[in-house]
Amino acid sequence: MAPAKSFYAVVAGVGPKTGRSVALKFAKAYPVVLLARRPESYESIVAEINKAGGKAVGISTDITDQKSVEAAFARIGKEETFAGAGLAAAIYNASSRAGSPKPFLDVTLEELEASLGANPRGLYLFAKSTLPLLLKSVPDSPHPPTLLVTGATASVRGSARFASFAAGKFGVRAIAQSLAREFHPQGVHVAHAIIDAGIGFASDGEVPGSKLSPDAIANDYWNLHTQDRSGFTQEIDLRPFVEKF
Amino acid sequence: MAPAKSFYAVVAGVGPKTGRSVALKFAKAYPVVLLARRPESYESIVAEINKAGGKAVGISTDITDQKSVEAAFARIGKEETFAGAGLAAAIYNASSRAGSPKPFLDVTLEELEASLGANPRGLYLFAKSTLPLLLKSVPDSPHPPTLLVTGATASVRGSARFASFAAGKFGVRAIAQSLAREFHPQGVHVAHAIIDAGIGFASDGEVPGSKLSPDAIANDYWNLHTQDRSGFTQEIDLRPFVEKF
Amino acid sequence: MAPAKSFYAVVAGVGPKTGRSVALKFAKAYPVVLLARRPESYESIVAEINKAGGKAVGISTDITDQKSVEAAFARIGKEETFAGAGLAAAIYNASSRAGSPKPFLDVTLEELEASLGANPRGLYLFAKSTLPLLLKSVPDSPHPPTLLVTGATASVRGSARFASFAAGKFGVRAIAQSLAREFHPQGVHVAHAIIDAGIGFASDGEVPGSKLSPDAIANDYWNLHTQDRSGFTQEIDLRPFVEKF
Amino acid sequence: MAPAKSFYAVVAGVGPKTGRSVALKFAKAYPVVLLARRPESYESIVAEINKAGGKAVGISTDITDQKSVEAAFARIGKEETFAGAGLAAAIYNASSRAGSPKPFLDVTLEELEASLGANPRGLYLFAKSTLPLLLKSVPDSPHPPTLLVTGATASVRGSARFASFAAGKFGVRAIAQSLAREFHPQGVHVAHAIIDAGIGFASDGEVPGSKLSPDAIANDYWNLHTQDRSGFTQEIDLRPFVEKF
Repeated sequence: MAPAKSFYAVVAGVGPKTGRSVALKFAKAYPVVLLARRPESYESIVAEINKAGGKAVGISTDITDQKSVEAAFARIGKEETFAGAGLAAAIYNASSRAGSPKPFLDVTLEELEASLGANPRGLYLFAKSTLPLLLKSVPDSPHPPTLLVTGATASVRGSARFASFAAGKFGVRAIAQSLAREFHPQGVHVAHAIIDAGIGFASDGEVPGSKLSPDAIANDYWNLHTQDRSGFTQEIDLRPFVEKF
Repeated sequence: MAPAKSFYAVVAGVGPKTGRSVALKFAKAYPVVLLARRPESYESIVAEINKAGGKAVGISTDITDQKSVEAAFARIGKEETFAGAGLAAAIYNASSRAGSPKPFLDVTLEELEASLGANPRGLYLFAKSTLPLLLKSVPDSPHPPTLLVTGATASVRGSARFASFAAGKFGVRAIAQSLAREFHPQGVHVAHAIIDAGIGFASDGEVPGSKLSPDAIANDYWNLHTQDRSGFTQEIDLRPFVEKF
Repeated sequence: MAPAKSFYAVVAGVGPKTGRSVALKFAKAYPVVLLARRPESYESIVAEINKAGGKAVGISTDITDQKSVEAAFARIGKEETFAGAGLAAAIYNASSRAGSPKPFLDVTLEELEASLGANPRGLYLFAKSTLPLLLKSVPDSPHPPTLLVTGATASVRGSARFASFAAGKFGVRAIAQSLAREFHPQGVHVAHAIIDAGIGFASDGEVPGSKLSPDAIANDYWNLHTQDRSGFTQEIDLRPFVEKF
Repeated sequence: MAPAKSFYAVVAGVGPKTGRSVALKFAKAYPVVLLARRPESYESIVAEINKAGGKAVGISTDITDQKSVEAAFARIGKEETFAGAGLAAAIYNASSRAGSPKPFLDVTLEELEASLGANPRGLYLFAKSTLPLLLKSVPDSPHPPTLLVTGATASVRGSARFASFAAGKFGVRAIAQSLAREFHPQGVHVAHAIIDAGIGFASDGEVPGSKLSPDAIANDYWNLHTQDRSGFTQEIDLRPFVEKF
């Protein structure tokens, strides 16, 4: 499909689990930009994608810092593969669990700030940089331009000893909801996924499927991205079949 | 894929919109059974599927009536295509809006009963007949055996003048949640879709995508059915990009 | 306060716990009518109230049956104390847990029907009889005329093996929400209380306050009833301090 | 009631509406400390309470600043009336709507930070200072020591153009939920009130009760504070009878 060649995806918060699987999945259709604070978080994934015939670049980015995020997107605009291309999908997968789980009276202000920083502030900065690009892609992207946001159990439940993490994740969900209501009518799809489980691959001796597979998440993110605009999902939950909820 | 040949799907509540699209979608992978009260609701869809090389039968069923539902499943067991086959997917798409919208004091007991009948009681009867079959399919069905349930805005919001419909749809959601919690650990996937919009195809002169397309719903139902058991979704919402929510 | 003399309250679903405490509480301000299926459920409470100088009558009523409910309200209109008086508060405290907790495949249709009967249908019948009376009281009742509805954990959560009870309680919540949205603007307050715990009095050896006291519930119901119409609460939750949630 | 003399209440976020009404209400039972950034926000209320025979002091406090909050509580410990007294109730009524309503792409990072600062961070700081004091009061305070938190529509709904405010208020709700789950079992009551309306007094020509009266809120806060620990409410909603929801 010709137009796919001129669109790309960007994933913020890349590590060995969800970020990697999502990057690999979207890399089958689009060149991808991987953002993470430390190069060792994305280098092997970039190599894996490029080796498999895809196209990927990684950019060291502190998602909690306005200048760093703006610099990352300025650089994307100058990369050969991405200059002139349209943004088809932006995935916000960064987070911080700082201060959780912990008795509330032991949570430090620094921990709370770290959660607010990598959760609502990070999403705010990422959305500020990506939404203008996604809006530009509305007329011709192969699927409705999409902003996907990774949530957690703590996005909908303030559990005991999770005040810090929940404050951050509730905030992320608030922004995702608000953006959906503002940008859906403009043609940009904004969806929030409640990841209600530990993520990983069940190891030997564990029941297959008993951990939430990053590949399963990536598959669902792709399904959300390819939804027709006649039927946008704003929120899904995801958990392994054995998970209590 | 060989095993798919010996599995089938059943759709309750078939009409010209969601039921038809879901039946056509699942008919690409499985023989399908269509249940509706009146033959004219399924006949043309059965013909459409069989003509396209699929396999479909329709059975007149009053989903609110225990004997009628049991008779339908007894007959399925005797049909050549379905005897010996396993049930891979059961979709509950029946409903009744009796008594809504209407000022509460004008709602009759018969209307409330019709809503409770086609909503929670119908789902109860359908689930009683399908869950034992879905459980049997766990070891070898191509995808985790799935019970999908169609909800509405009224599943999560009791709007003014919608007491009757909301009582029914809240009840459906309650059952779907409870079944998910009981049957997920046994390998059967139970998911509930909040259809938050009028369903149909945007007609000439309307903005494309401004109505929730039945085909989009069918696509999402298929995506839910094919989720790996490492990542089951229990609930999604669906609405056109222009819908207020 | 003079006007209080000509207003009364009615409580449906009277037993030794919440119903009794609510009746005693409201009996301090109003004559009260107690509805229960069996006379032994209300007789001692009626005696207790009348002995203490209050005014109470009990009426045997099957709250799931239209004729029985209509007959009860016809009789209220003929009682000396109540004829000509206005209805200030109606409390729906009836319920049925039939079929819960139980594996879904063991739940009988009769059990589901019992839950739907005493939960949404019972509330529907009670609301149909009381709302016209509450509307008439808007201009002069001492507090905004109030319809209070008792919910449970199962009103907001379909737990495993609680499909039957949850179907009923979700349905009750749906109706309460819908009535609030329709009748608040007309001056009638409709509130739903999520009773998220076993109800009772902590017995000897138990931690004081570790069970949800019926008197605490009654106190909250009174506080809801006496809310000014400038600030209506539609929903509260209630649980003992030690309850997990 | 003798013990009431040695307990006090503290209200953060005092202005002419909710803060003032809550302070006046609690001042009938307890000496009160009023915290606000600017003296002109509390001075007239302090005078009003002291003139009426109550006891009040105001302390200029930037609730978003750790040192300022700690200094305020250090000073409370040295005030004649409060030194040696127990804290019975702490009300968090501070907030910031910075950046809302506004198109998301026009919201500045400073505005988001202001919302996160006066909402989750402010509550965090206030709770860190008050919970140790509330815990100490558990054995002998006249009512279960209480932390009350003011929420808004934006606490449960991320509306279009309210990303900034909703991020803050969702975060506040997360913390309140988490604290309830951690501190209820220790005897401290934590409750969150969703104030779903504009607050004020209906002016001449407006329908009486059509605005959410601060006095109504204060009354409900008092009712929450005086709940027995056998029945704690974690969340209530409040809106005028005419409010759409």
